[in-house]
Amino acid sequence: MDSIFNSEVRVKILALLYGMEYCEYNYLLKKLNTTHGNLWSHLKKLEKEDYIEIKKYPLKKGVRTIIKIKNKGAEKFREYLNDLMEFSKKKV
Amino acid sequence: MDSIFNSEVRVKILALLYGMEYCEYNYLLKKLNTTHGNLWSHLKKLEKEDYIEIKKYPLKKGVRTIIKIKNKGAEKFREYLNDLMEFSKKKV
Repeated sequence: MDSIFNSEVRVKILALLYGMEYCEYNYLLKKLNTTHGNLWSHLKKLEKEDYIEIKKYPLKKGVRTIIKIKNKGAEKFREYLNDLMEFSKKKV
Repeated sequence: MDSIFNSEVRVKILALLYGMEYCEYNYLLKKLNTTHGNLWSHLKKLEKEDYIEIKKYPLKKGVRTIIKIKNKGAEKFREYLNDLMEFSKKKV
């Protein structure tokens, strides 16, 4: 199965991005309660697989980092969530 | 974050069990389209963490293996799924 979903943090990044037009890096950092190094490595993996795009805008001081989900990421996340919902529907 | 959810197969095992009173081992094997060795190692991990119970009933030939989700597993899975649904609600 797709290794992208073998990480709770990556799944939650996709969930957050799925729900928003775009997202600030610092919002993800706060919301997911993880470290900069950890979050960044997950974002790079998602970007490499074409699930998300990361854009950096230079500011007077530092840089603003904006993240958006791409079509592939949205599709794969929707599929994953649909599976979980379908599987977990009480059947008995 | 809880390492139990760092595996797509484990999450899907929990989803299936959450939706049923109990489950046959062979049903999981077919539904998750994985190997015996892989499925078994994930089940043992879930059992060790008290998320599920595994019972074996001897048959004339071989054994019948039944798996049930436990309270802890159901609670953790519900929490996980709720997070994903809340996170992914369109907000913009």
